[in-house]
Amino acid sequence: RSFSNNKIQVELDESSGVAMMKFKSPPVNSLSLEFLTEFSISLEKLENNRACRGVIITSAVPKIFSSGLDITEMSGKSVEHYTEFWRAVQEMWLRLYGSSMVTVAAVSGSSPAGGCLIALSCDYRIMAENPKFSIGLNEAQLGIVAPFWFKDTFVNVVGHRIAERSLQLGSLHPAPEAHKLGLVDELVPEEKLMEKAAAVMAQWLALPDHARQLTKTMMRKAVLDRLVAHREEDIKNFVTFVSKESIQKSLRKYMEMLKKRK
Amino acid sequence: RSFSNNKIQVELDESSGVAMMKFKSPPVNSLSLEFLTEFSISLEKLENNRACRGVIITSAVPKIFSSGLDITEMSGKSVEHYTEFWRAVQEMWLRLYGSSMVTVAAVSGSSPAGGCLIALSCDYRIMAENPKFSIGLNEAQLGIVAPFWFKDTFVNVVGHRIAERSLQLGSLHPAPEAHKLGLVDELVPEEKLMEKAAAVMAQWLALPDHARQLTKTMMRKAVLDRLVAHREEDIKNFVTFVSKESIQKSLRKYMEMLKKRK
Amino acid sequence: RSFSNNKIQVELDESSGVAMMKFKSPPVNSLSLEFLTEFSISLEKLENNRACRGVIITSAVPKIFSSGLDITEMSGKSVEHYTEFWRAVQEMWLRLYGSSMVTVAAVSGSSPAGGCLIALSCDYRIMAENPKFSIGLNEAQLGIVAPFWFKDTFVNVVGHRIAERSLQLGSLHPAPEAHKLGLVDELVPEEKLMEKAAAVMAQWLALPDHARQLTKTMMRKAVLDRLVAHREEDIKNFVTFVSKESIQKSLRKYMEMLKKRK
Repeated sequence: RSFSNNKIQVELDESSGVAMMKFKSPPVNSLSLEFLTEFSISLEKLENNRACRGVIITSAVPKIFSSGLDITEMSGKSVEHYTEFWRAVQEMWLRLYGSSMVTVAAVSGSSPAGGCLIALSCDYRIMAENPKFSIGLNEAQLGIVAPFWFKDTFVNVVGHRIAERSLQLGSLHPAPEAHKLGLVDELVPEEKLMEKAAAVMAQWLALPDHARQLTKTMMRKAVLDRLVAHREEDIKNFVTFVSKESIQKSLRKYMEMLKKRK
Repeated sequence: RSFSNNKIQVELDESSGVAMMKFKSPPVNSLSLEFLTEFSISLEKLENNRACRGVIITSAVPKIFSSGLDITEMSGKSVEHYTEFWRAVQEMWLRLYGSSMVTVAAVSGSSPAGGCLIALSCDYRIMAENPKFSIGLNEAQLGIVAPFWFKDTFVNVVGHRIAERSLQLGSLHPAPEAHKLGLVDELVPEEKLMEKAAAVMAQWLALPDHARQLTKTMMRKAVLDRLVAHREEDIKNFVTFVSKESIQKSLRKYMEMLKKRK
Repeated sequence: RSFSNNKIQVELDESSGVAMMKFKSPPVNSLSLEFLTEFSISLEKLENNRACRGVIITSAVPKIFSSGLDITEMSGKSVEHYTEFWRAVQEMWLRLYGSSMVTVAAVSGSSPAGGCLIALSCDYRIMAENPKFSIGLNEAQLGIVAPFWFKDTFVNVVGHRIAERSLQLGSLHPAPEAHKLGLVDELVPEEKLMEKAAAVMAQWLALPDHARQLTKTMMRKAVLDRLVAHREEDIKNFVTFVSKESIQKSLRKYMEMLKKRK
């Protein structure tokens, strides 16, 4: 069964209880407001569908998992737009990190910033074994700061020290390094990625749902609650920060650089 | 000097200040109410004995350290019984994790669930180098959830990520994997286990007691205090959970499976 | 440009924005009240100098980075003196751990106790690849206890389990072991130490200051705030502890042992 969407293709195999979610928003699966909204709605639909127990998240665009937050949404827009955009980023993360389904990221390409956050928020991360693909919370490279809940999610995966260093340097880790740091759980040859994701999913689905879900909640609740408790403050921080002329300037510079690269 | 007990043999060598505690409750050293009570009383006696500075905890039953909480205590009993049982589990952990003595686990066999908790609560874990022996908090496999203080103890040893994955999957890690994950500190051939435990104990006892004890308290107090503050609530949660017909059913199923295995 | 100081040589290269801080208080760069005061003042000067973006901290004394807190400041002195001394220790750490500059420790020799704390408080630690050099928070060996903020800093670097074991044993880890545990980030041959420190600094300074500083604050604020909130209590604890006759006795014994070694 397949939902028809614009930016994300979702197919649910009711026999296995596993949904496949494929990002298909070329050129780089940017997390625009539209993409994020569609992502959250798709997650909600699956969450409410008792036939669905797990989701594999991957990309239909070659070489890229997701390039992260769409910078055009953060540049030259109104306060209202920034507010709406940031709420959508939060919403996506709250749904994904707090999902009661088993979530497996099949990281089929590079995955900077918000793309990395999506992978970090899943239960398990498999990455294509290609040293040209990199992953990391590289916000600092752009002159911006990863929000505290990106950081909390990162620390929960790699620990405080690796997170501190990687976030300060805005590191993009090539796949083998990401694996060594624990940022991804496993590397497999590109052609085996989906097969491996299905096998991992089957392993996780072998557990009784209820006990697994309660365990997941126990592990993640503190970090989820922290954003819920500070959500409006976090939006305000983002809007104030992104509205600064210095930040706008560095984002424009970054976008020009991206254009030239093409 | 040896205490005469039913389920745990305790011998204190006053010259070295080291007590040897051997679980001897065949077939699998289940943590029954009686076992737990005897364990807590033995720990208390040693704690109050100024001649005792350290305890080595091991098993006299071949191939098994402890199989964890005795499921018969959780099945078909009264609310009062569940309450008393859970309080005894808490009491054991509070005494062991908070012990001012040096505690070394000589994990001589498999150690699932509550057995793993005992090992995790010691200062140091040595395990017999036998890939047939496994250790882990596998509660989720039985459809139940490890309590938050099992989780806190586990996270303090292996970190958040490894704990999250292992708890969700209810993993039982073979000794070599447990060592790789940091769940045990050292593997030694079975015949060297007690010799090694004694050597490690001597190393820890070389430190002045007072400074070591204050340091241990500093490291563990936050997690101990958390249970102390929520003890009655935790009992209530356990009793409610275990009284559910769905849980009773899955425990009965598990016990039948165990019987068939024999 | 070089500040003239007694115990620490500071040279700022305004073209690169990097200051070099060299401990030069033989025989072992003990952290005396005078040393600590000079250290804090030097850090404050650099912090307020907009030409300075990073500091490399190393030692001009062969084989030793810093031997840690000067025990003569803790022995046979008045309550007022202990109070002043401890406030200076706190002040140094608050400035260093909370520095907005990039801080790189070039650990050119052994670095026990307070010397280890200085290294742990930097953003990056490079150590001379000499197994005769060791590093660690070995307070427990002296019968004293590392304060909670030494512990917090340590846990942030190596995680809870390694910190718990290392602090209880008062371990001094030879350089290769320190590297394996994550206590230092990198080992290099002694003659390459400063070259490597400069290269690492250049890598960190490639990032825009503002985003890097906000990220650093996000990672360290909780631990810094904890001392700020409990500063007077922490002083009181130290003064009470160090004033005990049993502690004075064990410090005197330790100093005599040090004298005999010479």
